[in-house]
Amino acid sequence: MATFTQPHHHRSFSTFNPSRPKPKPAAATRIRMSLKEDAPSVAVVGVTGAVGQEFLSVLHDRDFPYRSIKMLASKRSAGKHLSFQNREYTIEELTADSFDDVDIALFSAGGSISKEFGPVAVEKGAVVVDNSSAFRMEEGVPLVIPEVNPEAMKGIKAGIGKGALIANPNCSTIICLMAATPLHRRAKVKRMVVSTYQAASGAGAAAMEELLQQTREVLEGKPPTCNIFKQQYAFNLFSHNAPVVSNGYNEEEMKLVKETRKIWNDMDVKVTATCIRVPVMRAHAESVNLQFENPLDEETAKDILRSAPGVVVIDDRAANHFPTPLEVSNKDDVAVGRIRRDLSQDGNHGLDIFVCGDQIRKGAALNAVQIAEMLL
Amino acid sequence: MATFTQPHHHRSFSTFNPSRPKPKPAAATRIRMSLKEDAPSVAVVGVTGAVGQEFLSVLHDRDFPYRSIKMLASKRSAGKHLSFQNREYTIEELTADSFDDVDIALFSAGGSISKEFGPVAVEKGAVVVDNSSAFRMEEGVPLVIPEVNPEAMKGIKAGIGKGALIANPNCSTIICLMAATPLHRRAKVKRMVVSTYQAASGAGAAAMEELLQQTREVLEGKPPTCNIFKQQYAFNLFSHNAPVVSNGYNEEEMKLVKETRKIWNDMDVKVTATCIRVPVMRAHAESVNLQFENPLDEETAKDILRSAPGVVVIDDRAANHFPTPLEVSNKDDVAVGRIRRDLSQDGNHGLDIFVCGDQIRKGAALNAVQIAEMLL
Repeated sequence: MATFTQPHHHRSFSTFNPSRPKPKPAAATRIRMSLKEDAPSVAVVGVTGAVGQEFLSVLHDRDFPYRSIKMLASKRSAGKHLSFQNREYTIEELTADSFDDVDIALFSAGGSISKEFGPVAVEKGAVVVDNSSAFRMEEGVPLVIPEVNPEAMKGIKAGIGKGALIANPNCSTIICLMAATPLHRRAKVKRMVVSTYQAASGAGAAAMEELLQQTREVLEGKPPTCNIFKQQYAFNLFSHNAPVVSNGYNEEEMKLVKETRKIWNDMDVKVTATCIRVPVMRAHAESVNLQFENPLDEETAKDILRSAPGVVVIDDRAANHFPTPLEVSNKDDVAVGRIRRDLSQDGNHGLDIFVCGDQIRKGAALNAVQIAEMLL
Repeated sequence: MATFTQPHHHRSFSTFNPSRPKPKPAAATRIRMSLKEDAPSVAVVGVTGAVGQEFLSVLHDRDFPYRSIKMLASKRSAGKHLSFQNREYTIEELTADSFDDVDIALFSAGGSISKEFGPVAVEKGAVVVDNSSAFRMEEGVPLVIPEVNPEAMKGIKAGIGKGALIANPNCSTIICLMAATPLHRRAKVKRMVVSTYQAASGAGAAAMEELLQQTREVLEGKPPTCNIFKQQYAFNLFSHNAPVVSNGYNEEEMKLVKETRKIWNDMDVKVTATCIRVPVMRAHAESVNLQFENPLDEETAKDILRSAPGVVVIDDRAANHFPTPLEVSNKDDVAVGRIRRDLSQDGNHGLDIFVCGDQIRKGAALNAVQIAEMLL
């Protein structure tokens, strides 16, 4: 029986991150703040997964108010216990009846679960914030990064109890657009060339575990165990494991192309992406080349990014200090650096930037909880 | 006292590469072929380094003919013994007198050593093939990738005994241009956006060792030892450690920009690059976005690359099998895959490709030995 004694399922990865977030005030205070009779009842679907666990972390860290909280997972995990904010919960099996009296359902259990149970939850009056790709491109379903396109939530805000579906964008889209959008607003991005450096976490907790196991094995001279990925991941990298579609792009890359258009409400923006998995635990990096319609100089771009919400600029050229996945791990903000005028474009019509963001946090759980906060 | 019993100093890394090259025929045969009275006398400068050791590997693998071979290194290594092709050598300290009777000197001991001793060797009549960046951009010094711009060697070919300096391009330039040049020849590259995924080996054998050590430490929950790099490398990645110049690019990136122009003899080609170190041992990967002057469709591009010398195409979309650093480690060929029409460009004027090449081998030692072979 697995018992989750802390909201951070991956507390054991803390050694990867020398700069953990500051400790929070005592739990008792928070619980008084969070458990409110007039607050929504919440359900977490896929609570045992990497993102599911991070939902709890984020709800806790942000003092998200709730009247009750339901821990939902597959039959395999049902009956196990889980401790959250000093209370014991029993994980329940996800069924069609799970959503009676649920106001907000945070889904992260894969696309097929979302497709099956998302509409059921909506039918029962819940607002579903779905982390899967199941509904992202569906017309009428808002695809939201709160800092980027809060206007897409119009009409949903007052919707608690009426049922609605809101999609959380893909992690690499969120991380890219957190940095690109403030610049886009100023100078209009015409074209964007993205190369990603994606962490194990995007493939779930088991993939993170596999990376660790493989690394141990390779160091011991043993053949690496390949269950989640079909090839060696330790000390290696490979094209993203998402299926390749007929145009030669993989689905992960097409998410960047299509989701950017929907989120920016700009069907003309040109995006190309190459998505690569690198042996890093939980934060993605992205090298982004931007072509602008209007001029935007380097210093103005830095100023814009410095004042952008949810963005931190790390750009110390003298010290060669720029964003790294490790530095943003377990952090809310997306970090941007290597901000420089693109030498390959005329005048000030291009910039290169390098972006890092925690894939599980802002790339998934935090963004979803921020969406839920917009409903309160 | 370190004794190198095999030309592969990094034989211990063979576990990282499941598909090692085929075993070679018995050494005795090769020695008869290589030791020739009318063959050039060779010096290897920096023989204890990662590239220096690979020089020996490549000379061995390619049956490079030589009359004699001098093993040169710093005072620290002088007097140590080294076994190569079944002969014992004593490592000699590099001094101004080292180049008496040397026909071909392969340098890989850093820029300052090249600057000091390169001209001395040339003065004594040696042809220097220099792997450092010291002379690459100097006018009159050929910067050569044999498959790409052999014409740059014109006039040097008959030069053994007369002294000359030839520069080996930077590893990321070589690997990028091996794939981009055949396409450039057909459709003329106007602009190229490169994002690199660079291995530890580019920073030398000690950096590779540090990556291994840090990885062990992190797995044991210990703080990582940072000597070569100032930050954690295990399970992390960071902007290339080369100094950042005034335009915001780092020197590694500027090498890609400037060397491409010199090698292609095209001062108008536009290049931008973002260079990133990833926790991989010895092969670089590069995501390359190409803009062409003339149309070039995907299938033609694949055909061109399939018949390009020194290039292998790995591009199985159904099996999601594309180049990886591990697959090209210890291999001569540069692998190209993810070859697809760039959706963000009109018609057939753009392609995205993903390239992997062994940084120590084609990125350094092999390319230099190939240059030396052109002198024979």
